[in-house]
Amino acid sequence: MKQSLILLFFSCHFIASAQVLDSTVQKNLQKIYTHSLTNAQSYDWLRYLSKRVGNRLSGTPAAAAAVEYTRSILDTLGLDSVWLQPCMVPHWDRGEKELVRVVNSQKWGTFDLKSMALGNTTGTGSEGILAQVIEVKSLKELENLSDSKVKNKFVFFNRPMNPEHLRTFKAYGQAVDQRSQGPLIAQKKGALGVLVRSMTVNFDDVPHTGATKTDGNKPSIPAFAISTNDADRLSNILKTESSLKIFMLNSARMLKQKLSYNVIGELRGRTKPNQIITVGGHLDSWDVGEGAHDDGAGCVQSIEVLRTYKKLGFKPRHTIRAVMFMNEENGLAGGLAYAADSTSGISHFAAIESDAGGFTPLGLSYEDAPKEMDLLAQIGKYLAVYNLRVGPGGSGADISPLKGKARLLMGLDPDSQRYFDIHHTADDVFEKVSKRELELGAAAMTSLIFLLDQLDK
Amino acid sequence: MKQSLILLFFSCHFIASAQVLDSTVQKNLQKIYTHSLTNAQSYDWLRYLSKRVGNRLSGTPAAAAAVEYTRSILDTLGLDSVWLQPCMVPHWDRGEKELVRVVNSQKWGTFDLKSMALGNTTGTGSEGILAQVIEVKSLKELENLSDSKVKNKFVFFNRPMNPEHLRTFKAYGQAVDQRSQGPLIAQKKGALGVLVRSMTVNFDDVPHTGATKTDGNKPSIPAFAISTNDADRLSNILKTESSLKIFMLNSARMLKQKLSYNVIGELRGRTKPNQIITVGGHLDSWDVGEGAHDDGAGCVQSIEVLRTYKKLGFKPRHTIRAVMFMNEENGLAGGLAYAADSTSGISHFAAIESDAGGFTPLGLSYEDAPKEMDLLAQIGKYLAVYNLRVGPGGSGADISPLKGKARLLMGLDPDSQRYFDIHHTADDVFEKVSKRELELGAAAMTSLIFLLDQLDK
Repeated sequence: MKQSLILLFFSCHFIASAQVLDSTVQKNLQKIYTHSLTNAQSYDWLRYLSKRVGNRLSGTPAAAAAVEYTRSILDTLGLDSVWLQPCMVPHWDRGEKELVRVVNSQKWGTFDLKSMALGNTTGTGSEGILAQVIEVKSLKELENLSDSKVKNKFVFFNRPMNPEHLRTFKAYGQAVDQRSQGPLIAQKKGALGVLVRSMTVNFDDVPHTGATKTDGNKPSIPAFAISTNDADRLSNILKTESSLKIFMLNSARMLKQKLSYNVIGELRGRTKPNQIITVGGHLDSWDVGEGAHDDGAGCVQSIEVLRTYKKLGFKPRHTIRAVMFMNEENGLAGGLAYAADSTSGISHFAAIESDAGGFTPLGLSYEDAPKEMDLLAQIGKYLAVYNLRVGPGGSGADISPLKGKARLLMGLDPDSQRYFDIHHTADDVFEKVSKRELELGAAAMTSLIFLLDQLDK
Repeated sequence: MKQSLILLFFSCHFIASAQVLDSTVQKNLQKIYTHSLTNAQSYDWLRYLSKRVGNRLSGTPAAAAAVEYTRSILDTLGLDSVWLQPCMVPHWDRGEKELVRVVNSQKWGTFDLKSMALGNTTGTGSEGILAQVIEVKSLKELENLSDSKVKNKFVFFNRPMNPEHLRTFKAYGQAVDQRSQGPLIAQKKGALGVLVRSMTVNFDDVPHTGATKTDGNKPSIPAFAISTNDADRLSNILKTESSLKIFMLNSARMLKQKLSYNVIGELRGRTKPNQIITVGGHLDSWDVGEGAHDDGAGCVQSIEVLRTYKKLGFKPRHTIRAVMFMNEENGLAGGLAYAADSTSGISHFAAIESDAGGFTPLGLSYEDAPKEMDLLAQIGKYLAVYNLRVGPGGSGADISPLKGKARLLMGLDPDSQRYFDIHHTADDVFEKVSKRELELGAAAMTSLIFLLDQLDK
């Protein structure tokens, strides 16, 4: 019988138990949901951030506008304090020209691939680069090649995301090393440039950009994401035309670092003011689309948490902060600056990030926290009513530097099916965000924070 | 302890138990998911049905095209039989002109409301109708008014869908009586026409049509859905201008009944050929948009179930049918014809419908079936792995005439947050359907049917 019970709890992710729930807590959760679904502002904020500020890569004027815009929202909420936390951010610029062209294929002739340079890479220079292409499916396959086979060629990483995983993030996690580490490895082996299959399970014509690791001391080789349709086409051509040449031309470059900021709003705790619960998203986005899901959604949801507290007259025991982190996409300067803040006497009880899109929330995930399992089990019981599962998983990049400092790192876990349709593309626009889904995400985070604040003894 | 366990099971919707699962069954479910996420055809079928056939109200040429198109798909699958089941359907025609105009408001002057006639209603005639408006919030409020207050006026039903319900269908269920029954009640009290607030929790300019009950023996009064923004505006004006007049003009009419068909494909059962498991959606749609979510999605998912069985070489024990029902939207002729089929010796073990949109499936719901709880609990255990909850709820309109005849009536339960953004509107188009979400729905239904077929003793 004992074993059965353990199994039961395991399978349920804590959503079930015979323990009695506190009816006042339940009523307050209901208030949070009612408010979130009838009086939220997040959708209007997101419209402005997406349509008026637009995409906002670190160091750009739009990123500065996003700082001012979100600060101005926080300023209207009657919080205990609102401030900017400085951080130096990289300023990468895509430049004007981007061209990846298949030249004189025997069968297909000359045509351009749908491409976008990867963030932090260096362009080809005005002459461009013409070279042969070698296709690999993994970093390991590349590493096993002799340098002479790679030297003076373009390396083409073409391992698809596996559509069989129910959670698309799992497929992403298994494929993204090609984009994040591939170019630097190729560079070290003497390659002249890199092509990476876009990170999506779709077959379409949309390139997905994203960050890649570079050697900070010297310029990278040029590297591009290409659409999955073009990746398949290129791969097919290479099967019979192994000496096929590609011409790359672009002017991407790293400009001087810029001073930028995390934007922070705070509600001071009544009884535990020095123990912080942080909720956040990242304010920067890639330089295409509107950064609506990634991560405008997480920002406005985080601000909505504080607004909901104020509107409902809740007085938290812990201090609650909403943080708009800067530079998640290509550096993590904001997250690092936040974790490095050494204001004395302050410690983090919990940090929660929303950076998986503004889709219907399915649950809240926590990073390994063996001492907090009772608390999490209790929270899971309250949130099951709202169709939310509390279970093990990731949290968020911006709060990851708090590992070992905060007792709990958690993440909002929305439905992941549509995220890689738009992730890091021109299609990440406001129109792809559903008001209800966005608001349910904010309600889930507010409820989690309310429970953390109330149930932590 | 006993009580605790009951609570546990209840809270889990059967997703947890200590019983051992059959590993062959588990492996076959995995095969279904892998196939569904990597080799499905449903998205391509839906593109054709949405873009090429287009919207397809019963009795229209497009409805006939939809019959032929889905039959032609079924014909390619190597099934045991494919046939058309005749039914006589109403043929309602919206006509050419639709106008609902506020005339000479003191403050707002003259302007048109965003409107769409309700299905099955009769138009105003070429002269149109000019009348005052009386606003009510419920059928009861209208019924309590003396006939003299209603006579020769337009009745305006304006109770909003309640956004506080997590499941939007619950809010719909609580509001839709205004659309489905309001016009006939107003007609009986002498009203000249009806306006109904559109069935959505959004505030926007999109009218949502839908069926309304009529007295079969005589023409209805004209009745329109108006957008929620216009409903709020009209309500505001009426507060200070109670004698405001509205002009209605349209030429909607009921044409002669037409012969149409349910489209049926069948895989004969190995050991229980006379016990049927039916899976279906409805082939007709409203006469706006493309009927992509409602219910093109359910149709192509149902066909995909049979295709998956064939592709994986599964030989069912029961007979499995995919049924494309005709005329769900404004008559249910197809569902009634299907249930009335009296082929001797045949009985229905289960019927499952997908008619809640092609969104991420969250579970499968069953109508009251006390004798089948063990079976459902067992199924729930297998499907929990795929993040599906098996719980009580509704099934589908087309299979509702099988009540009392089939042992189990079940419905696919997708995420409901976006459904009433597009339901019965011009926005129900192919572009709003996600390939992954559609395929996961088909996988969920195929898995359910596989389990029903295997576990039924």
